[in-house]
Amino acid sequence: MSNLDGVLAPILTPFTNALTPHVPLFVALARHLMGQGLGLAPFGTTSEGNSLGVEEKVELLDALAETGLDMGRTMPGTGCCALTDSVTLSRHAVSLGCGGVLMLPPFYYKTPSEDGLFASFAEVIERVGDSRLKVYLYHFPQQSQIPITHGLIARLLAAYPATVVGIKDSSGDLANMEGMCRAFPGFKVFAGTERLILPVMRAGGAGCISANANIHGPAMLELWRRWREPEAEGLQKGLEGFRTVMEGVPLIAALKALTARRTGDYGWRRVRPPLVALPPEAEIELIERLAKAGIAI
Amino acid sequence: MSNLDGVLAPILTPFTNALTPHVPLFVALARHLMGQGLGLAPFGTTSEGNSLGVEEKVELLDALAETGLDMGRTMPGTGCCALTDSVTLSRHAVSLGCGGVLMLPPFYYKTPSEDGLFASFAEVIERVGDSRLKVYLYHFPQQSQIPITHGLIARLLAAYPATVVGIKDSSGDLANMEGMCRAFPGFKVFAGTERLILPVMRAGGAGCISANANIHGPAMLELWRRWREPEAEGLQKGLEGFRTVMEGVPLIAALKALTARRTGDYGWRRVRPPLVALPPEAEIELIERLAKAGIAI
Repeated sequence: MSNLDGVLAPILTPFTNALTPHVPLFVALARHLMGQGLGLAPFGTTSEGNSLGVEEKVELLDALAETGLDMGRTMPGTGCCALTDSVTLSRHAVSLGCGGVLMLPPFYYKTPSEDGLFASFAEVIERVGDSRLKVYLYHFPQQSQIPITHGLIARLLAAYPATVVGIKDSSGDLANMEGMCRAFPGFKVFAGTERLILPVMRAGGAGCISANANIHGPAMLELWRRWREPEAEGLQKGLEGFRTVMEGVPLIAALKALTARRTGDYGWRRVRPPLVALPPEAEIELIERLAKAGIAI
Repeated sequence: MSNLDGVLAPILTPFTNALTPHVPLFVALARHLMGQGLGLAPFGTTSEGNSLGVEEKVELLDALAETGLDMGRTMPGTGCCALTDSVTLSRHAVSLGCGGVLMLPPFYYKTPSEDGLFASFAEVIERVGDSRLKVYLYHFPQQSQIPITHGLIARLLAAYPATVVGIKDSSGDLANMEGMCRAFPGFKVFAGTERLILPVMRAGGAGCISANANIHGPAMLELWRRWREPEAEGLQKGLEGFRTVMEGVPLIAALKALTARRTGDYGWRRVRPPLVALPPEAEIELIERLAKAGIAI
């Protein structure tokens, strides 16, 4: 079994000027991030994963596998509204040796029952029917509107103890993460923000999956590696400069603009609707604010 | 150009016991509803449209076309989170001669900008690139969380006056429907509930698309046909009995249970997760409440 503990980057998805996925740029960013020691969580929120069709995600994942990257260190997002889409993607991820999959609940129908959500995950797991499948639940109530409750986790762990192995908690609610670490020993809890790496690791968590790791991953990884050391508090504080600046901008578009600057490839600025690219004046302001915070891109 | 004005049924989607779409039952219901004089709006909220994969929706739509039904009287839902899925479905609907398509905005990212939403619809329209495409916007803020504002409609009408032709408003907000009828002459406004057929027709609307038309369509159609007559107020009131009972139950599961009773086919009770089937005791209570309201199924 692969170990995904650590810091994972929810890798951005680049587009051509026809708004199709730009495979070479995607593979290049994957190499860059994995070269920094990060794992990869493609097709999450930051990756515009839900704006991609199933066949586009299959193509991008295939490209990562073909390029020889360690698929055991990838956790692609495979949870869709349509059961069949979630099954197709999860099965494909398993066939490529992905270390896990990050599974959103179906998010169109609001206030689904716990029975209905349990059935959603259970159906996907049963249909994939492969012991290599390792599911990380994706709790992001602000975006999906569908919380993953502790009650649901307990039922899934009871039914599929070898398959349901962890969660990404993007709620920002530390008490919820600590509660899961306490309630479910061995269940791998990833904070969805670098702001909480230290407290989550202290609570027994597994690591962090944060959008900002597309740009600022090495600093997060250093904290994750050294969280038991006296320097950890300082390292945690050191993450605040970048994070605070990024909190004030449209995050995905801004991370793409910064990636465009870092790589010199203008195409990185493109996003798929309904997102919009960062306007040039906002990009200049962002760079100035980062410079003031002592951060060079 | 086909005329979709009238009452459309957002036709339920039946499933086999393997939870795959049950094509013969679907076609049978389509024949039944169209035989009653209703148009069809497959793959909307009531149809569990977002719980179906693109290829499943293509298969079901093909089955309707092959059976010789008047596709000009169908308005399939084609708006998905992924741009490519919306394009594939819209193009397929056009190729089959569908009278229109009902388009949800991409609904994963919350609070998208008007620019981003405009770009979403524009991209789909441009990519389909076919003058036969007739788009009905789908405004259902309670479910999609993404409202279709009057500002957005005005921009789309200015850019695509021959393509963007109407809206289904499931907000329940009569003032919004009346406002659209006033602001956009010729724009076809469909109420998403039979509760508002009469006021929407009086405001200049086109008709109604309501879940309950799967069971109670003929009564809605009679009101739609006779809304100018003195009996209209009474006909509108006459719709309240069924509607009020259905307001108190999980709507889609309940409509499926009633369809199972009407047709004698138990399989109709099945739903796809995250929905759950109506428990037998709730079904018995529903039938009793309908009987008390003087409605036999």
